[in-house]
Amino acid sequence: MRAHTDYLWFTTRTRRELVNITDRIAAIVAAAKIAEGFCLVSAMHITAGVYVNDWENGLMHDFQEWLEKLAPSGLNYRHHQTGEDNADAHLKRTIMGHQVILPVTKGDLDLGPWEQVFYAEFDGQRRKRVVIKIMGE
Amino acid sequence: MRAHTDYLWFTTRTRRELVNITDRIAAIVAAAKIAEGFCLVSAMHITAGVYVNDWENGLMHDFQEWLEKLAPSGLNYRHHQTGEDNADAHLKRTIMGHQVILPVTKGDLDLGPWEQVFYAEFDGQRRKRVVIKIMGE
Amino acid sequence: MRAHTDYLWFTTRTRRELVNITDRIAAIVAAAKIAEGFCLVSAMHITAGVYVNDWENGLMHDFQEWLEKLAPSGLNYRHHQTGEDNADAHLKRTIMGHQVILPVTKGDLDLGPWEQVFYAEFDGQRRKRVVIKIMGE
Repeated sequence: MRAHTDYLWFTTRTRRELVNITDRIAAIVAAAKIAEGFCLVSAMHITAGVYVNDWENGLMHDFQEWLEKLAPSGLNYRHHQTGEDNADAHLKRTIMGHQVILPVTKGDLDLGPWEQVFYAEFDGQRRKRVVIKIMGE
Repeated sequence: MRAHTDYLWFTTRTRRELVNITDRIAAIVAAAKIAEGFCLVSAMHITAGVYVNDWENGLMHDFQEWLEKLAPSGLNYRHHQTGEDNADAHLKRTIMGHQVILPVTKGDLDLGPWEQVFYAEFDGQRRKRVVIKIMGE
Repeated sequence: MRAHTDYLWFTTRTRRELVNITDRIAAIVAAAKIAEGFCLVSAMHITAGVYVNDWENGLMHDFQEWLEKLAPSGLNYRHHQTGEDNADAHLKRTIMGHQVILPVTKGDLDLGPWEQVFYAEFDGQRRKRVVIKIMGE
């Protein structure tokens, strides 16, 4: 068994951003030289997520509108009594999920035809990290 | 360490369907002859999910009604400008989750008394795939 | 490759409770003596969840209020025709997620600065279990 650990850093230009990271993950998997295994991709900050879905601009817009409806910003959240203003970001990332496990088969990501991996930032414009850990052999 | 990869195909009769796949997963785990490990079950299409919950018809009905409330079909989604009509299916599968990791202990799925594994189809009536990958020894 | 399996039991005093279990997971990881691997933490009951987020009382309060809004208790759920009254607990745990995979790097949980692991009980006051399975070497 071998393990390979890497990290990606993100500083988004806007507060909320969905970033396609599939190619970067694929490059890390290639560098790991693991033929069969699991690749964990997990946000290390609690106002960001990682999810798998479609790389289509309209749908990405729909996701943002939908999340704002289900977990609105600007409400009088209890969390904001600490001085924070990002409670909605914690909730939004909970809906999207904060991690995925990608199967690695014959040395490649074993993804369906439309599966793309996204970093979902809900409180950005500062340096935040994602861990990528591959285990297998 | 050993890895065993298999795929299940689904063509549901209706557009939305929740299919109990626990026995099929258990059979793949038995075939893998892995005593201790992890079993990933992950939808390879982005309008379907995989989740663990109760196999009770009333609750399955409640899930469908609840998802329709949180992520309604028939809205004027931006994604539909591409010609698609399934934006709600992308959102519904996001709430349910698209993958689970099942522990394998002493050669069997290590599940609680009521845990059952489901394939959740939200845009069916066509051939779609789930990957099952077991890693361990 | 080595595997280490453990279980945590919970009997919460109230029906709904969010319990920080990070230290207990870290102790199990230390006992496993696995330097590089994955640690699965998964609720074995279907009205409870496991999630990673902030250990801040205000936010924990916000989570509970938000879940009650998205998946209200007391509705006339079809599941309740079985005599149960906890359909909302099944839905709430679905939003929070029922499991996480924590990376183990150099013998420790590889978590971000604010990442804490929680057991989320939505139908408690009775004995329920979480499986912790670590795989690696």
